[in-house]
Amino acid sequence: MNLDALYSELTLKTNAKLALVVLDGLGDIATKEQNYLTPLEAASTPNLDKIAKDSAQGRMIPIAPGITPGSGPGHLGLFGYDPLEFQVGRGVIEALGLGLELKPGDVCARANFATVDGKGIVTDRRAGRIPTETCEKLCAMLAGKIKKIGDTDILIKAGKEHRFVVVFRGKGLEGPLTDADPNREGFAIPNVKPRDENNAGQKKMAALIADFYKAAVPIIAKEKPANGFLMRGIAHQPHIPLFEERYKLKPACLAVYPMYKGLAQLVGMKKIEGPATIAEQFERYLKEYDNFDFFFIHYKYTDKAGEDGNFMAKMKAIEDFDAALPILLREKPDVLAITGDHSTPCAVKGHSWHAQPVLLYSALSGSDKLERFTETGANSGSLGVFEAKYLIRLMQANAKMFDKFGA
Amino acid sequence: MNLDALYSELTLKTNAKLALVVLDGLGDIATKEQNYLTPLEAASTPNLDKIAKDSAQGRMIPIAPGITPGSGPGHLGLFGYDPLEFQVGRGVIEALGLGLELKPGDVCARANFATVDGKGIVTDRRAGRIPTETCEKLCAMLAGKIKKIGDTDILIKAGKEHRFVVVFRGKGLEGPLTDADPNREGFAIPNVKPRDENNAGQKKMAALIADFYKAAVPIIAKEKPANGFLMRGIAHQPHIPLFEERYKLKPACLAVYPMYKGLAQLVGMKKIEGPATIAEQFERYLKEYDNFDFFFIHYKYTDKAGEDGNFMAKMKAIEDFDAALPILLREKPDVLAITGDHSTPCAVKGHSWHAQPVLLYSALSGSDKLERFTETGANSGSLGVFEAKYLIRLMQANAKMFDKFGA
Repeated sequence: MNLDALYSELTLKTNAKLALVVLDGLGDIATKEQNYLTPLEAASTPNLDKIAKDSAQGRMIPIAPGITPGSGPGHLGLFGYDPLEFQVGRGVIEALGLGLELKPGDVCARANFATVDGKGIVTDRRAGRIPTETCEKLCAMLAGKIKKIGDTDILIKAGKEHRFVVVFRGKGLEGPLTDADPNREGFAIPNVKPRDENNAGQKKMAALIADFYKAAVPIIAKEKPANGFLMRGIAHQPHIPLFEERYKLKPACLAVYPMYKGLAQLVGMKKIEGPATIAEQFERYLKEYDNFDFFFIHYKYTDKAGEDGNFMAKMKAIEDFDAALPILLREKPDVLAITGDHSTPCAVKGHSWHAQPVLLYSALSGSDKLERFTETGANSGSLGVFEAKYLIRLMQANAKMFDKFGA
Repeated sequence: MNLDALYSELTLKTNAKLALVVLDGLGDIATKEQNYLTPLEAASTPNLDKIAKDSAQGRMIPIAPGITPGSGPGHLGLFGYDPLEFQVGRGVIEALGLGLELKPGDVCARANFATVDGKGIVTDRRAGRIPTETCEKLCAMLAGKIKKIGDTDILIKAGKEHRFVVVFRGKGLEGPLTDADPNREGFAIPNVKPRDENNAGQKKMAALIADFYKAAVPIIAKEKPANGFLMRGIAHQPHIPLFEERYKLKPACLAVYPMYKGLAQLVGMKKIEGPATIAEQFERYLKEYDNFDFFFIHYKYTDKAGEDGNFMAKMKAIEDFDAALPILLREKPDVLAITGDHSTPCAVKGHSWHAQPVLLYSALSGSDKLERFTETGANSGSLGVFEAKYLIRLMQANAKMFDKFGA
């Protein structure tokens, strides 16, 4: 039997409130250089400590052993969607990161401005990394003249330096396509092709990309150095079952960064705009308490510090989070999970495959008799080491949302 | 999406050196009789202790919960091949154990000399367990007269007591076949049959076995008590993806016993001949350091002692290993895994299903803050309890050999 189908069948609607609090990139590794402590272990966390004693802990494998996830797969896993089954194209993630609101069926492409010579040969794949302002100017030129191709709406949005995103919103469009990118200098830009020759939506989309090139190239042909562009990761927003239907929970997203709002929106969470700090996010949670059943609260700064390899900054980010936590606890959710979407160890200076620690707090979580929430403590927690996609099922179970299986 | 395909897609070639050190049958269980210590816990292991502090630990399920593996599946798992997907016939394992070098397509059978009466009824399936010397003499008689059947080369090699192996090297041969063995005394030897009636290679092979019987039986018909023989586990060497292509690692095998050299060779590792002790194996590792990326180093004596139920001998084998370890550490591999292929608990006097402890040491393994490498410590390691087939993926991750999955 399909496990997701079983979960669905057993799911009961209740009045429980669930909160999934994600400290991005929370997990870390203990090293000799840092006196065998992780930032979470080195931080002073009196408020986390208070709930730790009454919580269960464990560690979560974001995707599969050894696999380092990007933010997309990391969050899909936390939302309970198998990241190997529900893959989100890079164009879509990039569009979400730029704050574009996508609709089902939208096809997105990440694009680079590039330098092309008189014969169409790419001489610089990044057009000398033009300043962001130049990119914005060029995107405005393109967007001003290309609003529609046939019955398809075209949205163009500038990113940082040479990067931008193009969204195709029309009927019967599908990805993925091959890239319009030779992947190295000295070659012409190849035409895109359907990944599946028999897919009508991909064929239509490939023709549309060709038309887009025809319309766009003349507009920037005399610019220097960005007189051309490459397009990659061309894919449509995947069909993802709606969170509310899948879990019988009405979900809200309290995130500050566009990427995470976008990922939440992909599964149908309601974006709540406004809060800019974790304290404001928790305050808003209190205000919205009666309006939703499930709150996804995202905190970015642990990941940022990890990416910088800045141990003290990551420790401080955790302490700042801890200081705000009592606001959330004023009206405790029935089930509270605190974790990361992956590890971002300072020693790695980037995302990693290491299992992130997770704390699960509810009247029924049981106590693992741990005085603190740490990676080392989590190793001996009652939840063990498990795949992140099951966290939401444990949260539902703790909310008494599952009927008994069998008699 | 298929996970192996994903791993392949994400794999990057690097300059990292990886070493997988297998203490055969390392895992054990603590019992009251031994003062609640395992041999690994009772042993003095100052050198393992030194690296334990900077390592991650966990326990590995060789195949699946409760399944006790033979050496074949145990090692295939360690090499990252799902032992349920890649099954190696017993004939092949037996041939490898006798030091036969197999080629792709070879079909192997394990055989027993037996006693047969005038009516063809098996009266002793092991011919009274004839001495090994008699077996060698009989095999030489057979090998002297049967070198080829049609265009198929026949290799015959004696094992211990009544056991021997026959290898069929020809074109278009396949297994598996049913056994030429009534499985009990008092019955005639059945003809072999293809397991799949529609498989041409199996049909050809079944005819070949019948021809082999016709040629061989008259040669030994007047011997006593071994005037007949049974054949079992008739199968071809399975098609296994080459290690080097699968992992982008150039692998070498430093083993002493033929079985393990053979298993390494099955996946395409280069056998390095010469070393006869663990110290010599480590010395040779130092010499070959620049020539390979991956070293499989196999140590047999822990398993031997476990099979004998000899606690003190297993403890001593671990101490001998530990004493040699500093040689390896003179030129530390970037990623070092130390584990067993399964447990061989002294109380079991044989292989078992108990999860074996594993230690993973690299600049990015993180420290589990454990002062020693033991079964009990490994229970609270950050790697948790996982299937052995994932170890190599964790080793690759620690060697930074995987690109990020998704954006």
